[in-house]
Amino acid sequence: MEYNFANKVMGLQPSAIREILKFTSLPGVISLAAGNPSPDAFPVDELKEISEEIFAGSPVDALQYSITEGYPALKKTVRDFMSSRYDSVKDFDEIIITAGAQQVMNLATMSLCNEGDAVICEDPSFIGSLNAFRAFGCRLCGVPLESDGMNLEALENTLKTEKKARFIYIIPNFQNPTGVVTSLEKRKAIYELARKYDMLILEDNPYGETRFEGENIPSIKSMDTDGRVIYAGTYSKVISPGMRVGYAIAPAPIIAKMTVCKQVADVHTNIYAQMLVDRFMTSGKYDAHLERIRGIYRRKSGIMMDCLDRDCADFVKYDRVSGGLFIWCTLPEKVDMPAFCKQAVIDKVAVVPGSAFLTDESKVSHCFRLNFSTPTDQQLYDGMEILAKELRSFC
Amino acid sequence: MEYNFANKVMGLQPSAIREILKFTSLPGVISLAAGNPSPDAFPVDELKEISEEIFAGSPVDALQYSITEGYPALKKTVRDFMSSRYDSVKDFDEIIITAGAQQVMNLATMSLCNEGDAVICEDPSFIGSLNAFRAFGCRLCGVPLESDGMNLEALENTLKTEKKARFIYIIPNFQNPTGVVTSLEKRKAIYELARKYDMLILEDNPYGETRFEGENIPSIKSMDTDGRVIYAGTYSKVISPGMRVGYAIAPAPIIAKMTVCKQVADVHTNIYAQMLVDRFMTSGKYDAHLERIRGIYRRKSGIMMDCLDRDCADFVKYDRVSGGLFIWCTLPEKVDMPAFCKQAVIDKVAVVPGSAFLTDESKVSHCFRLNFSTPTDQQLYDGMEILAKELRSFC
Repeated sequence: MEYNFANKVMGLQPSAIREILKFTSLPGVISLAAGNPSPDAFPVDELKEISEEIFAGSPVDALQYSITEGYPALKKTVRDFMSSRYDSVKDFDEIIITAGAQQVMNLATMSLCNEGDAVICEDPSFIGSLNAFRAFGCRLCGVPLESDGMNLEALENTLKTEKKARFIYIIPNFQNPTGVVTSLEKRKAIYELARKYDMLILEDNPYGETRFEGENIPSIKSMDTDGRVIYAGTYSKVISPGMRVGYAIAPAPIIAKMTVCKQVADVHTNIYAQMLVDRFMTSGKYDAHLERIRGIYRRKSGIMMDCLDRDCADFVKYDRVSGGLFIWCTLPEKVDMPAFCKQAVIDKVAVVPGSAFLTDESKVSHCFRLNFSTPTDQQLYDGMEILAKELRSFC
Repeated sequence: MEYNFANKVMGLQPSAIREILKFTSLPGVISLAAGNPSPDAFPVDELKEISEEIFAGSPVDALQYSITEGYPALKKTVRDFMSSRYDSVKDFDEIIITAGAQQVMNLATMSLCNEGDAVICEDPSFIGSLNAFRAFGCRLCGVPLESDGMNLEALENTLKTEKKARFIYIIPNFQNPTGVVTSLEKRKAIYELARKYDMLILEDNPYGETRFEGENIPSIKSMDTDGRVIYAGTYSKVISPGMRVGYAIAPAPIIAKMTVCKQVADVHTNIYAQMLVDRFMTSGKYDAHLERIRGIYRRKSGIMMDCLDRDCADFVKYDRVSGGLFIWCTLPEKVDMPAFCKQAVIDKVAVVPGSAFLTDESKVSHCFRLNFSTPTDQQLYDGMEILAKELRSFC
């Protein structure tokens, strides 16, 4: 028979990154296109031990149905941690445990947006979130991203003219794909603009704790006096993405609506995984683990940036990073980007073309995204060598 | 600030069952209102051993990001098992692994339905699915359920008149809440009606493998020559609901669209849980485990039906069950149902009023749902004794 799909998802395509990742499974291709944590960055021994404790002590709790809001112990752990360390839980806030931060985007959009509403977002931005907004029929209003965050004038202009905007979506720390950290001044200004135009903010912070240099900048949630910030957190980058455990911190009425949405989405998040994460976070071993993975990413990003500085400085512009998983490279305007990315794959190195992250994917971008977390050190050296050769022939 | 929610989810309320389950946490209340597997029914020792193997042998695979379609080994296991045992995978079919069967409802509706479309369903039916359809703005067209399945005349009438119907939703085995098994004749007739009106069928089969008496009846999927059946399966009732592993078997184009929807929903299902389920399903221990849980449910349902026959026969009508988790009781029309359910909770036993499962929840139902899987045997005896007293005073 012939199949007709819903209008909203008709145009939804597998992400361009997924398409590129297909090539990366070809023999010999070095992928600088992924966004996975380093395989060395998982606390395997600690989780192994905790898992054994769970199966020995509370197997039925870990296997039985649980409640949609999330494992109460983990909710308390999130509250205590995010409150004491980052002042990011307010008195009016509640918490829901989700299947990774991706589900926060899904549930927030489902809760708040009608078809035809708009989401204001950094341009470029994380394709997984952009597609989550698109899947509910939202239009994307992109605000150009500068090296210290959104262009404020463009943001205010959008807030002024776009009458159906529902929230501002922002990744303030080591943004995907650009690595940009929004400055404290701009965070404050964005919050003030949200107040002025009575707008919600969806603050997505998967990478904040990977910071391996410099000081943490306060979250927008920490400035939230009015209850207009939905904060999305996740353990994907600091413990395990495969376990799919994330959370939202938001005013109680929003969490209540996200909870009924989650009930119909997947009932609850895998409870064993919630117990595992909770016990690791309260084991006293988290900070030492964090130091270890920061060391890994400091080293890996260093290898990549050294290669860029040494071999590619004539062709590539980039801003140095002090956290996250990505480096954003800009090429001279004369470079034919699709041809460049295609040739790179033929020569056995994969990068993601910048256009994949634009709110309007048909626009031209002279940037590409590099990932330093997933490859081995040797793959980083080899991949960057190929890329440097590539650049010399294209620029 | 004031919060405005999306129109589609504005009316979405925490399910009536959830509200009742709140009372069941009060001290001393015996809950016959849940739908959890028996705590004795989990293969704890086997899963413990497999979990240790995973952490010893492939910890990084279990902790890293995985692909949206699902763990390839588990997809193959589902395909082999469902094909050889139930002839329920056709050549044109693909498989996606989901976060329980609830996510199949979510992804199928997201893929197929525009706001204002209709879903044809058994009336009464499983509230979790009905709410999933409602959450995408679908109207519910209820077809009265008889003791051998949907009333075919009403179904055809609905198919004839409802121009925006997208699929027929059916739980053919031990339906929730009624325990009804759709007869082979009706399954064939429903498939033929779907052909006649070119309609899709969403076949939800969480309880089929709990059958502890009688022969399995072929699935509608096994009759699917045209590619019009989406089959939803789950390991929640036979291995563990807390692990949230289910699957859909459907024509490739539908699975492809559900996959892009899942990508924006939660990226992928917990990969550790997929590995755990896969290894248990291929361990050779599944059938013995199934025999064990069938024994538990044969015994527990027997206790409940004996009590109904002995103490409640004058007031309650019900059909004997040979699988599933529920018994559906009908009371005389004179009984004030809300008062009855309320008094039951005061007297320390909780049941779910039938109205919770109607497509139109404002209608009156003279039925209530009993669950026999979750309580201990002693709780079953005690709970049914209270209920019998209750019935004598109300009827």
